[in-house]
Amino acid sequence: MAQEYPIYGRIDGPVVIIGFGSIGKGTLPLIERHFDFDASKLTVIEPDAAKATFLRQHKINHLQVSLTPDNYKEVLGGLFSEGKGFCVNLSVDTSSLELMTFMRELGVLYIDTVVEPWAGYYFGTTDNAARTNYALRQAVRDEKARNPGGTTAVSCCGANPGMVSWFVKEALLTLARDTGRDVEAPASRGDWARLMQSLGVKGVHIAERDTQARRVPRARGTFVNTWSVEGFIAEGFQPAELGWGTHETWFPENGHRQDSGCQAAIWLERPGAITRVHTWCPTPGPQFGFLVTHNEAISISDYYTVGAGADPEYRPTCHYAYHPCDDAVLSLHELFGSGQQQERHHILTEDEIIEGIDELGVLLYGHEKNALWFGSRLSNEEGRDLAPYQNATGLQVTSAVLAGMVWALENPKAGIVETDEMDHARCLEVQRPYLGPVEAHYTDWTPLQDRWVQFPEDIDESDPWLFRNVLAS
Amino acid sequence: MAQEYPIYGRIDGPVVIIGFGSIGKGTLPLIERHFDFDASKLTVIEPDAAKATFLRQHKINHLQVSLTPDNYKEVLGGLFSEGKGFCVNLSVDTSSLELMTFMRELGVLYIDTVVEPWAGYYFGTTDNAARTNYALRQAVRDEKARNPGGTTAVSCCGANPGMVSWFVKEALLTLARDTGRDVEAPASRGDWARLMQSLGVKGVHIAERDTQARRVPRARGTFVNTWSVEGFIAEGFQPAELGWGTHETWFPENGHRQDSGCQAAIWLERPGAITRVHTWCPTPGPQFGFLVTHNEAISISDYYTVGAGADPEYRPTCHYAYHPCDDAVLSLHELFGSGQQQERHHILTEDEIIEGIDELGVLLYGHEKNALWFGSRLSNEEGRDLAPYQNATGLQVTSAVLAGMVWALENPKAGIVETDEMDHARCLEVQRPYLGPVEAHYTDWTPLQDRWVQFPEDIDESDPWLFRNVLAS
Ligand SMILES: NC(=O)c1ccc[n+]([C@@H]2O[C@H](COP(=O)([O-])OP(=O)(O)OC[C@H]3O[C@@H](n4cnc5c(N)ncnc54)[C@H](O)[C@@H]3O)[C@@H](O)[C@H]2O)c1
Ligand SMILES: NC(=O)c1ccc[n+]([C@@H]2O[C@H](COP(=O)([O-])OP(=O)(O)OC[C@H]3O[C@@H](n4cnc5c(N)ncnc54)[C@H](O)[C@@H]3O)[C@@H](O)[C@H]2O)c1
Repeated sequence: MAQEYPIYGRIDGPVVIIGFGSIGKGTLPLIERHFDFDASKLTVIEPDAAKATFLRQHKINHLQVSLTPDNYKEVLGGLFSEGKGFCVNLSVDTSSLELMTFMRELGVLYIDTVVEPWAGYYFGTTDNAARTNYALRQAVRDEKARNPGGTTAVSCCGANPGMVSWFVKEALLTLARDTGRDVEAPASRGDWARLMQSLGVKGVHIAERDTQARRVPRARGTFVNTWSVEGFIAEGFQPAELGWGTHETWFPENGHRQDSGCQAAIWLERPGAITRVHTWCPTPGPQFGFLVTHNEAISISDYYTVGAGADPEYRPTCHYAYHPCDDAVLSLHELFGSGQQQERHHILTEDEIIEGIDELGVLLYGHEKNALWFGSRLSNEEGRDLAPYQNATGLQVTSAVLAGMVWALENPKAGIVETDEMDHARCLEVQRPYLGPVEAHYTDWTPLQDRWVQFPEDIDESDPWLFRNVLAS
Repeated sequence: MAQEYPIYGRIDGPVVIIGFGSIGKGTLPLIERHFDFDASKLTVIEPDAAKATFLRQHKINHLQVSLTPDNYKEVLGGLFSEGKGFCVNLSVDTSSLELMTFMRELGVLYIDTVVEPWAGYYFGTTDNAARTNYALRQAVRDEKARNPGGTTAVSCCGANPGMVSWFVKEALLTLARDTGRDVEAPASRGDWARLMQSLGVKGVHIAERDTQARRVPRARGTFVNTWSVEGFIAEGFQPAELGWGTHETWFPENGHRQDSGCQAAIWLERPGAITRVHTWCPTPGPQFGFLVTHNEAISISDYYTVGAGADPEYRPTCHYAYHPCDDAVLSLHELFGSGQQQERHHILTEDEIIEGIDELGVLLYGHEKNALWFGSRLSNEEGRDLAPYQNATGLQVTSAVLAGMVWALENPKAGIVETDEMDHARCLEVQRPYLGPVEAHYTDWTPLQDRWVQFPEDIDESDPWLFRNVLAS
């Protein structure tokens, strides 16, 4: 029996997918499945010749070009000359800010999964403050402030950043319910922030464990990951970064505050992908995660701030605590150990993966029930039954893009938005069929559990949930 | 055509192998192959019932008992009642010092591969100074000083500690030759030390890369290694430790000196298996190694000291820089991340390993040719052709045990000796057929190469080979 898929709406005008990597390729079938649009007007912009055959075989218009600061207006202006349609940016090395600004000028809906800069940004400067996601995000927020409203451009709508912001809201409602509060979903940012504050949440880990694995041992000199290797290396080598909560009593020696913008985050003078934190996921229990900088670490801390600026009344700590797949852990160990980026990159495909899930959720901690993990535990096996061309990691991202596109079509004049600012219930409604088990798990675990008895560690036992305790020795 | 194996001598009296783990099982066929002895007098002491079937099938006397401080004299005294024979200690959780002392009292030759303490020692105290290998080794050295000469007991004669000490000598002679010196092999400790000094060697990494891998992804909750998991966890959780050279100008903040004994080493207030150092091996080039404490780090620094005590004229830095097999890297990441030792242990067998070598050598650095790696690059595949029941790692160890036994038979009244004190040429002559390619590689690499441009590191560019530069950020 053929499955019936809901059609969420009609995209009028061209659909342009920029980047046909692991995410672009996985998003295509979801767009085809869930939207009504003119197939002859769908174009993929993808410089990599290796993607050409697939696109030709599937009769997809392919523009084999790299977008650059010099050509993007001409290329995209040509494709969107009618001033309508949808630009789905799933590339690396393109400026999200400039693309979304231009799309809004043209009246074209826009979505991306990360605030990406033009090529060269990540390794082109040694000014670490300029290499933070804080700087990248703030530029988008400043554009939103300068040009409020207008054509919708959804910023950072993948799994994380993206879906996890919807999980935070769902987790807050779950926690409110489970602690006997009688709450309805808040309607404003301020009310959401006060809900989090009133629940006593001190912070949020984006707590992820990817257990996907294949049968072949990782080859030396190849960086293996379950999504963009380029993207992961770039963000992994940005400074570690986190939203900085009002409950923190200690400040890292290598930490830097921000003195303009929302001031919700700090960064550390150390690459995120070699900075370990103690965290927790349902499958492994306690585990190391890497403190890789992510947009949501800043946006969530910002969104849930009560007050503003450097000294608000309330703000949660928030950061990524990422245990990538084992092959990526080994790839990082090799990369940092050799001081060289691997030249060969490989993204595990859904076909070669023989086991594992991407367990991606939010760990809300410090409240009266200690800690609550809420997230998706999608296996590659289940993912393969749900949609083609992607592993579990990919599907969590592409289904978030789908949800964001649906929301944008339903809210075409919302201006620039982050996922925290979208209707999380509607978005999860669209996305959930693709997420496998979405579960809430309470845990007694704290970062003070299971420390070394034999060696001194820089901890503060007065509050287990201080970042000082989360940061690994 | 049947291979002809040399018989190196006759062992008069009982042969007792204590411990039938990965090393004990691999040593047995080498003993059978290369010695003349009375097979009915060979006994294996092994408490683990899982080993009983193999031993029964091979008609090997099996004493299924754990040696303890309370029973060892009775058990071993019974077996060695004639006051001759060979005691080959390849177990964990038995006191090397007490066993060797007792064997020497009885006039029985003795060999082991590590200065092992009785069960409970490694995790039974929080006094880290007492948990160092320095303390374990010094107790054996003190016994040697108290009771010089007498029946030979070879201490720490595996691959490392063990074989690598012979490699250091071979590497020194290679370096002398390659730098145009006209040297003969020194005949005394003092002459060896002055040779190393005169060659300008600042230090030695025991630089190992194990690339052995199997086809099955590592299961969560299982510590996988290519040799004793118990042994590796124990030493990995001892404090990081290293022989401390006279060229060092900086002292680690968490470092501790020794104030009795040879004073050749220092230890750090941090587990060795989570402490990364920059090192180099031929296959990967630059890589991370773990600063796991090892007997040879101390013995080599001690042996090559010109002068004595806390302030000698010359002493090389020496430490282990171990990149275990990838599954062990992941096992350590899991162990430290969870704060719990895995309950399931697995040693990769020669049959399940589908690729890889154990590349184990010594990296002599700081001299006029910068750095020289000298070592064995034995593959599991080649190892399988050489001897049964072991992977490449095992064969490097068991063939060192063989060499040590041969030397002991040929020098039965040498007292307590470390491998630095043995005839390295004779030992390598015996061992070399089992080591695969034994190679010398010069490299331009230094620990200052390939550092982060984007992040500050605590380095001193005035001398690339300072431990300060070797220790990873
Ligand atoms: N928010 C999330 O949860 C999430 C998750 C995964 C990936 N991402 C982001 O999505 C993006 C794509 O990820 P992926 O896994 O598909 O990456 P990928 O590396 O597999 O693919 C990126 C593609 O972009 C193309 N590209 C490179 N430069 C380009 C240019 N100048 N113009 C147009 N295309 C260009 C590449 O050829 C490649 O095919 C990355 O930015 C990544 O960081 C976000
Ligand atoms: N120097 C080297 O290069 C080197 C290399 C590998 C191993 N080793 C050492 O060799 C020893 C054996 O290594 P392995 O890989 O065979 O270890 P393993 O864990 O495979 O085997 C150890 C064996 O000792 C037995 N045992 C435990 N307690 C005992 C007791 N009280 N009395 C008698 N037997 C007991 C265990 O049952 C087990 O079979 C370890 O101490 C290890 O550290 C040294």
